[in-house]
Amino acid sequence: MKVLDHGSIELLQYMGDTRGAELNIVNAARQSFGQSSQKMGKSENGLVNFLMKNRHGTPFEMIQFLFQVKCPLFVAREWMRHRIGSYNEYSGRYTKMMSEFYIPEGDQMRTQTGKPGAYVFEPLSGNAAMGATDVMRDCRDGALQDYECLLDMGVAKEVARMVLPVNIYTQFTWSVNLRSLLNFISLRSHETAMWEIRQYSKMIENLVHPIVPRTIECFEEAGRVTP
Amino acid sequence: MKVLDHGSIELLQYMGDTRGAELNIVNAARQSFGQSSQKMGKSENGLVNFLMKNRHGTPFEMIQFLFQVKCPLFVAREWMRHRIGSYNEYSGRYTKMMSEFYIPEGDQMRTQTGKPGAYVFEPLSGNAAMGATDVMRDCRDGALQDYECLLDMGVAKEVARMVLPVNIYTQFTWSVNLRSLLNFISLRSHETAMWEIRQYSKMIENLVHPIVPRTIECFEEAGRVTP
Amino acid sequence: MKVLDHGSIELLQYMGDTRGAELNIVNAARQSFGQSSQKMGKSENGLVNFLMKNRHGTPFEMIQFLFQVKCPLFVAREWMRHRIGSYNEYSGRYTKMMSEFYIPEGDQMRTQTGKPGAYVFEPLSGNAAMGATDVMRDCRDGALQDYECLLDMGVAKEVARMVLPVNIYTQFTWSVNLRSLLNFISLRSHETAMWEIRQYSKMIENLVHPIVPRTIECFEEAGRVTP
Amino acid sequence: MKVLDHGSIELLQYMGDTRGAELNIVNAARQSFGQSSQKMGKSENGLVNFLMKNRHGTPFEMIQFLFQVKCPLFVAREWMRHRIGSYNEYSGRYTKMMSEFYIPEGDQMRTQTGKPGAYVFEPLSGNAAMGATDVMRDCRDGALQDYECLLDMGVAKEVARMVLPVNIYTQFTWSVNLRSLLNFISLRSHETAMWEIRQYSKMIENLVHPIVPRTIECFEEAGRVTP
Repeated sequence: MKVLDHGSIELLQYMGDTRGAELNIVNAARQSFGQSSQKMGKSENGLVNFLMKNRHGTPFEMIQFLFQVKCPLFVAREWMRHRIGSYNEYSGRYTKMMSEFYIPEGDQMRTQTGKPGAYVFEPLSGNAAMGATDVMRDCRDGALQDYECLLDMGVAKEVARMVLPVNIYTQFTWSVNLRSLLNFISLRSHETAMWEIRQYSKMIENLVHPIVPRTIECFEEAGRVTP
Repeated sequence: MKVLDHGSIELLQYMGDTRGAELNIVNAARQSFGQSSQKMGKSENGLVNFLMKNRHGTPFEMIQFLFQVKCPLFVAREWMRHRIGSYNEYSGRYTKMMSEFYIPEGDQMRTQTGKPGAYVFEPLSGNAAMGATDVMRDCRDGALQDYECLLDMGVAKEVARMVLPVNIYTQFTWSVNLRSLLNFISLRSHETAMWEIRQYSKMIENLVHPIVPRTIECFEEAGRVTP
Repeated sequence: MKVLDHGSIELLQYMGDTRGAELNIVNAARQSFGQSSQKMGKSENGLVNFLMKNRHGTPFEMIQFLFQVKCPLFVAREWMRHRIGSYNEYSGRYTKMMSEFYIPEGDQMRTQTGKPGAYVFEPLSGNAAMGATDVMRDCRDGALQDYECLLDMGVAKEVARMVLPVNIYTQFTWSVNLRSLLNFISLRSHETAMWEIRQYSKMIENLVHPIVPRTIECFEEAGRVTP
Repeated sequence: MKVLDHGSIELLQYMGDTRGAELNIVNAARQSFGQSSQKMGKSENGLVNFLMKNRHGTPFEMIQFLFQVKCPLFVAREWMRHRIGSYNEYSGRYTKMMSEFYIPEGDQMRTQTGKPGAYVFEPLSGNAAMGATDVMRDCRDGALQDYECLLDMGVAKEVARMVLPVNIYTQFTWSVNLRSLLNFISLRSHETAMWEIRQYSKMIENLVHPIVPRTIECFEEAGRVTP
């Protein structure tokens, strides 16, 4: 699934009951009563709703997802602040960085007004946006050229990459349970989140929706608050 | 899989590449180089070994397991001290406790000599062992009777269960990644661990061995230290 | 501070700015702007309120508490399900257990009506309560006698303790940050929490209130939801 | 404490017994036996050594540290992969970034030979090093100019900062317990770690040494492996 100009996110694997992944949630919760269900039905859907509304979060930890992500480095930095989950990332110490950079397109070359915590973002006027795009492209070209030049001089990869800007793309594997994922989308699909990470967050919602449809529905109904 | 007199452990599900679960480890590690493998081969096995030996632990977090466990409460207490993982347990607040209790059999009615941290355990002599078994059986019967009696008097389940001893069986669901699982078996299969939890730990090794054979082999070679 | 019949909780140490512990919260948050405060004032109090209301939780992790707790084992079991924190507990494997047991007093010898998740608890009638108390006392005396008897027979401590009921007292050290502590009291001071753990939770609130007064006030105002 | 060209690290606060911080470790461990110590002596030092050697890690979690760090962004990225700890960082979304950049000095303008995992780093020859330094300075000046230019055009701070390279300085607050700190220095003071983060890691060792001298000594003796 394509995200931004050169990014992507792919759901590689997940762990969940083959008769319906959400049975993992239901049967973890029914564990309290020494009971279990064989398929998702009316009572099972009701239980998912009850758990979400009353913020019984642990049963949602029983479903696990594995994603492959390609995103700009400044997006990866926000992402990896989420500590409940596992990451393995492309390394600029061991490997030459990919020469792909994010440059905001159209309305996303934006300006801000208002105070921190309550910013309003609006598109720059056409002329200014074109000027800004030119500056960012030049900067990208210059950084790439400098990076190559330092490598040619024999500078170690881990040193040469220091000149690369934070809109360069990186990629990583992410293993995360459903509860931690709900916390991610609660924060990162929110309108105050940075537009770029919001695009990934929304795509994550799309990717997991067919697997945990009742959970996403109840999450919406409960005001998108992490259980 | 049966463990102890009334206990069991079952591997319900796991998350791992269908072409070989350990590809999750390999491809998480190869992420650093922007590379990936399609199947486990000589070079992939070598990489697992390298990661284990050099204690690069994060790629081992990319495989997830889901277990159903039935064990005595005093075993569950040690188990849940492992914080990297998820638990949902049978609840004595909501449900009447099962009337099954662990009583050590044969050589496991044991005596201890030596100092803390260096105990030596040996079987009690036959007569003493029989006496001890009788005491434990009487205690179990008495506790059960008292529990039933309190329930009959109208005492709330969460209060009545207070008389139940810690050798009563409980059950829980456990979701854990491979790295945390290796830490568990590093500590709980160790000869200084309590004999009862060691039986579960060894069964866990047996259950995951067919799924992550190379990891277990390298773990052995590396002295069973968590990566 | 005494809790229940033989329990206690003590705040041993905490980490926080000597000019006002809550400066740790404020200055962690102001880090985002490269700013810092020297003392808690109107603007600092307002910031704590803003963080709580908008669920910016990480600054609350910058204050740490160390507690010494003595509580019944069934309370400790609920407590240690809180994974963000550190525990070291009295060990029945290495040490003879203390001969103190919790027995509900007065109205707390309770009965329950209603469904799971919506139980209503009421005091047992006087006669039934007296009967139940007698049963629990006999059970305690019997268990203690059996424990001593098994030890006298030469049974190892870790085996002999298996006959002890879950209302026996244990003790542990707990290190926890303020955010995780707020999550604890959000769940464990709640009216649906078990009465016994609620007594500890409320005492925790009393103990930390003088150290983080503004946080507790804002927590109340925000509906006691963890930030 | 100065680190690198414009960086620093400061130990702001810590939580530990006023009679000797390491009593927190000792008394958490002695909890198992229901015992405690009033001051660090021969037996207490021996216990710290025993815990370290036998990898009983949890008592080391009972001491907490709070640091203020200023470091290049590429160092911060490695740092924040350590998940057991708390962070609050300077934000380029809310605040104009500081115009300070790391440029390797002297021998640290380095070249690499060998394979990943076994790199050997050597200083670039004088001429090449001077050339590389010029490239990095030009790149820094260009990026700063572009950043200012974009801000002048009205581009939002969170967009304009995308052109800034990863050697720009950032700052953050870090709360971490002693066990997690030992894991950090085990990995980041190691000779295979990146030179720049090693400078911070060594400074951390210097800063905590007077507070937990016996722990650091035992850590050395045990081969610098995290307990």
